[in-house]
Amino acid sequence: MNVTVLGAGTWGTALAALLAEAHTVTLWSALPDELTVIENEHRHPHLPSELPHTLRTERAMPAAVKEADIVIIATPSAYVRATARAAAPYLREDCTVASAAKGIEEGTHLTMTEIIEQELRAVRGAEAEAIGVGALSGPTHAEEVARGVPTSMVAACADEAVARRLSSLFVGTCMRVYTNTDVRGVQIAGAVKNVIALAAGMHRGMGFGDNTLAMLLTRGIAEITRLGVALGCRRDTFMGLSGIGDLIVTCTSHHSRNNRCGELIGRGMTYEAAAAEIGMVVEGYHALRPTLTLARACGVEMPITEAVAAVLSGKLTAREATEQLMRRSFKTENE
Amino acid sequence: MNVTVLGAGTWGTALAALLAEAHTVTLWSALPDELTVIENEHRHPHLPSELPHTLRTERAMPAAVKEADIVIIATPSAYVRATARAAAPYLREDCTVASAAKGIEEGTHLTMTEIIEQELRAVRGAEAEAIGVGALSGPTHAEEVARGVPTSMVAACADEAVARRLSSLFVGTCMRVYTNTDVRGVQIAGAVKNVIALAAGMHRGMGFGDNTLAMLLTRGIAEITRLGVALGCRRDTFMGLSGIGDLIVTCTSHHSRNNRCGELIGRGMTYEAAAAEIGMVVEGYHALRPTLTLARACGVEMPITEAVAAVLSGKLTAREATEQLMRRSFKTENE
Repeated sequence: MNVTVLGAGTWGTALAALLAEAHTVTLWSALPDELTVIENEHRHPHLPSELPHTLRTERAMPAAVKEADIVIIATPSAYVRATARAAAPYLREDCTVASAAKGIEEGTHLTMTEIIEQELRAVRGAEAEAIGVGALSGPTHAEEVARGVPTSMVAACADEAVARRLSSLFVGTCMRVYTNTDVRGVQIAGAVKNVIALAAGMHRGMGFGDNTLAMLLTRGIAEITRLGVALGCRRDTFMGLSGIGDLIVTCTSHHSRNNRCGELIGRGMTYEAAAAEIGMVVEGYHALRPTLTLARACGVEMPITEAVAAVLSGKLTAREATEQLMRRSFKTENE
Repeated sequence: MNVTVLGAGTWGTALAALLAEAHTVTLWSALPDELTVIENEHRHPHLPSELPHTLRTERAMPAAVKEADIVIIATPSAYVRATARAAAPYLREDCTVASAAKGIEEGTHLTMTEIIEQELRAVRGAEAEAIGVGALSGPTHAEEVARGVPTSMVAACADEAVARRLSSLFVGTCMRVYTNTDVRGVQIAGAVKNVIALAAGMHRGMGFGDNTLAMLLTRGIAEITRLGVALGCRRDTFMGLSGIGDLIVTCTSHHSRNNRCGELIGRGMTYEAAAAEIGMVVEGYHALRPTLTLARACGVEMPITEAVAAVLSGKLTAREATEQLMRRSFKTENE
């Protein structure tokens, strides 16, 4: 298969390198310097292992996508719309597009696949319908995938044939891929978990224990599930790899930027200072506002998300927010 | 309230110390030496902080339980039946009994509350009906509770008034308690998670990464849920504090004996050698056989549990078992 990955950050590059074991893979980036480093050194600065020499690079969008059977968009979520728009005119009629980015767009509250579908329709009209659009999501730290660590994720599309086409790409690699037809649920889970990861990082920064983290993850996935179900998603999705699986890996791993950013805030830094120290996109911050807007529109209670918002805006310290959460009236788990 | 805790291991002692902040608490043990250490040093050898001097100790069962409003059984699961039988004749008619032990009994496949109810009926006949029996379970490492770390758990009983009575005990402590009426589901989850913790420990011993652990926990709770639902429990319970919450804390924390035992096996030790090195009860080993018997009786697939059994019996190495799991045919998350 011809596979093109759009976006040469850590995750895009790790995916491209993994798939280059079995496919003809082209890596495109809007930032030519990223590709120059990869071409010259066969390395990505944040990945541990050498990249396969069969991995191609391409700076021109038309050349990058025009022969691709599969196009994976792996930019930060804020650039998915522009990237899809740039690629749309040049895609093959029978290609499949997958989003490997996690986020909800501010203002529109659309998921990444919804944004891609919108851009394909805007450029190609009815002809866009033939292009399947899916999402890849799950507990997949790029650094570990680059080391060949056994990993799993979900290929999601309402059309299961598209999900299966995406999952079949990974046969023979270290990646075990499950399909899921709840493409919206998979993406809501993947976006909102970054908010909970900020909270988990804060808890770590304040020096709390494993018991507290387990509580935060359990009550965190409970509020993400409430939101997802109110938005028409399947409850089970949130118990799957893109839900609790991704939440666990994001909240327990030092690889996660959201988690590290939260940790700095938990130690007393402002969000702005913490984000500057991380120096890469903190997706949880960008997911916060659309998540709260959706939750309020659906009448769903998200106390942890509200607490994170209060801390990031400086209304509460992380410690005050924790005390408020622990002091809430006792509840039943049966809802 | 008068509270009596039966069992002076780490969890029983930590619960007794926590409740002694607000109640009159008596700690009983079948092992007089355990109590002597506590009386002389106001410390438990495996807990970090001093015990409150108001904590009473008692060696005689009748004196320990006869005035108790609440009796908490916190022995290892294998001793819950004998402890309940010994206490049964002396309990107040209106008392509430809670199990803080996690396990499924070999042979009978009963949960801890079912065992306690059986023993109460055997000794007291119809009069036993007035005694409410519930379970306390969740992500609660004793060492952290002893340090006052914010912690949560579930008080479970089919009779919600009993669950609320148990949860109200903890008001004002570091423990946030949710009620749940699915007492069987809470206990199935609490018992079987120890098997998955053995698998998680093995993965750590083999040097796999955070991605692999997240996959194991997600697919682990999926198979525990399948079993629980087949046994008539509520699916949501497994997504709660006694389900995924407890699984997370057990599998990510060095405090867990099951996890540490699995780690030694992952590094190449036999189960027998690993258990001897841990030196305390490894509940996951005892839960393994009843879990598999129940799963086979219900026709439920539990591939991770089967793999742990194969490794513990010496049929497969941990590495061979992992390879088999990763090579299973690709699946959908939608079931």
